[in-house]
Amino acid sequence: MTRTVIESKTKTITIGFDEPFCVIGERINPTGRKKLAAELEAGDFSTVEMDALNQVACGATMLDINAGVVYNSNPNPNETEPPLMTKMIELVQGLVDIPLCIDSSVAAALEAGLQACEGRPLLNSVTGEEEKLELILPLAKKYNVPVVAISNDDTGISEDPEVRFAVAKKIVERAADFGIPAHDIVVDPLVMPIGAMAGAGQQVFTLVRRLRNELGVNTTCGASNISFGLPHRHGINAAFLPMAIASGMTSAIMNPLRPVEMEAIKAANLLMNHDAHGAEWIKFGRVLDAVEQGTAFPEASKAANAAGSGRGGRRRRRG
Amino acid sequence: MTRTVIESKTKTITIGFDEPFCVIGERINPTGRKKLAAELEAGDFSTVEMDALNQVACGATMLDINAGVVYNSNPNPNETEPPLMTKMIELVQGLVDIPLCIDSSVAAALEAGLQACEGRPLLNSVTGEEEKLELILPLAKKYNVPVVAISNDDTGISEDPEVRFAVAKKIVERAADFGIPAHDIVVDPLVMPIGAMAGAGQQVFTLVRRLRNELGVNTTCGASNISFGLPHRHGINAAFLPMAIASGMTSAIMNPLRPVEMEAIKAANLLMNHDAHGAEWIKFGRVLDAVEQGTAFPEASKAANAAGSGRGGRRRRRG
Repeated sequence: MTRTVIESKTKTITIGFDEPFCVIGERINPTGRKKLAAELEAGDFSTVEMDALNQVACGATMLDINAGVVYNSNPNPNETEPPLMTKMIELVQGLVDIPLCIDSSVAAALEAGLQACEGRPLLNSVTGEEEKLELILPLAKKYNVPVVAISNDDTGISEDPEVRFAVAKKIVERAADFGIPAHDIVVDPLVMPIGAMAGAGQQVFTLVRRLRNELGVNTTCGASNISFGLPHRHGINAAFLPMAIASGMTSAIMNPLRPVEMEAIKAANLLMNHDAHGAEWIKFGRVLDAVEQGTAFPEASKAANAAGSGRGGRRRRRG
Repeated sequence: MTRTVIESKTKTITIGFDEPFCVIGERINPTGRKKLAAELEAGDFSTVEMDALNQVACGATMLDINAGVVYNSNPNPNETEPPLMTKMIELVQGLVDIPLCIDSSVAAALEAGLQACEGRPLLNSVTGEEEKLELILPLAKKYNVPVVAISNDDTGISEDPEVRFAVAKKIVERAADFGIPAHDIVVDPLVMPIGAMAGAGQQVFTLVRRLRNELGVNTTCGASNISFGLPHRHGINAAFLPMAIASGMTSAIMNPLRPVEMEAIKAANLLMNHDAHGAEWIKFGRVLDAVEQGTAFPEASKAANAAGSGRGGRRRRRG
């Protein structure tokens, strides 16, 4: 059985075929968020703190930490990313106790993150590019952490799913050469926008099933890519995620602050028999009730979490 | 390729692996609708008329017609159902031009429906019970119509999906003995409530894939059964349908008046590459916009249909 074990200081979570879907919160990432980038350059981490707390409240299983900022004062990411990664990880793991996903294209930032992280984080990512394989796989081995494998290589991103499968297979084999087992590889088969490639959805469903059956690996994706450029994106995402889950997808890097997508995932967990006695669904139903009455999703989630957790719950019932 | 062809007087639709999901509107059915039953007994067909028009407006591909009423004046369905079926079919096909699904447990009502129906309706249903096989399959053959095959038999409904698969296989084989090809059998693998059987979702997904791969048949189900007894049923249904579609389900008997479920199906069609250029999704987006602004779903759908159809559209743009 494929089980990818990830740990924070005190919590262990498992990505697996018999586990609830793993939601990797994508918000802590300055790419494309100019305001956040400017804040970080000014040493203001309030948005990072809020994103950490809100994503956990809304049901993130893990948090992705990306320090890919371009400072006005210093445009060299090899100099700026490693110390910012360290700072962000220290900050986030001081606030919340869920496992982290260290996300960078800069090897030195990944290593800085690995040094700062308590527990067993997920490394994000290696690709099939030779330089990446030689740099990142030794890091994953040295720190004994699982790694996201993105199925592009030195030739770029292929539109042919056969090629993307072959790249994933190559990464799994190269990882094995470094002593990294398949259950510590989480393959991202690459989700193309359906608006640009009409077969992108079916491609992913087929690839995920093959990756699971033939390579025995867990899978992930940047889920919202699928709906890029189309109207009513949440509706597309909210159908895509259950379809990917039914096909065997076990995690996604996504925005957990979106109730429509999170509802789809909670329902899919229930339908996959990964929600014992429907307890999570019933709890989430109370959050939906509050959201329908006008409460913001993070606040509604926090209230439901407080009501559901031992002492807080009893206090609430007495009041 | 499995293609189940259904026809109204002038329209042909195909249930198939490469077709948009077939939505069989379930509303015209007095079972459990006391008010409708009383209206029908009094000769009032206004609800039937409204249900026919609204279901078609909201995107039904076919309409199920069930005359399973128990009159206060006559509790014998063998006497009441056949003439009511004739009357309802004549009424509905006078109002709307989409194929019909003749739904009864009374063989005489099925035959009355077959006689009244223009085109090539879907017969609903045969089961694996010996008496049903001997009564219904000859009817399907005589009228050259496809038939829904429900996977229970004389021993009842098995909780074991292997048994339900075996019953479906038996029906397909018996149909072949009557000269009915597999592409004219639409199997209903029976959807159990997930609240009563936690594995019911996975059972259906696995069964649908096997029915498709091993028997080459189209499939259907009473979709809302999955969420029976649970809170926030629409959210469960709206995840179940895309998951079933990704597993190979090609139709469902369901309520097309529910925008949440219909949005899930439109998105799934797009993701399965069964919506050329996203035209249906973009049109449905305009309906969602109107619904968000407070317009009722049937009225929003009617407006979008009018805007999208030649002259109506031009008039609207001039106004």
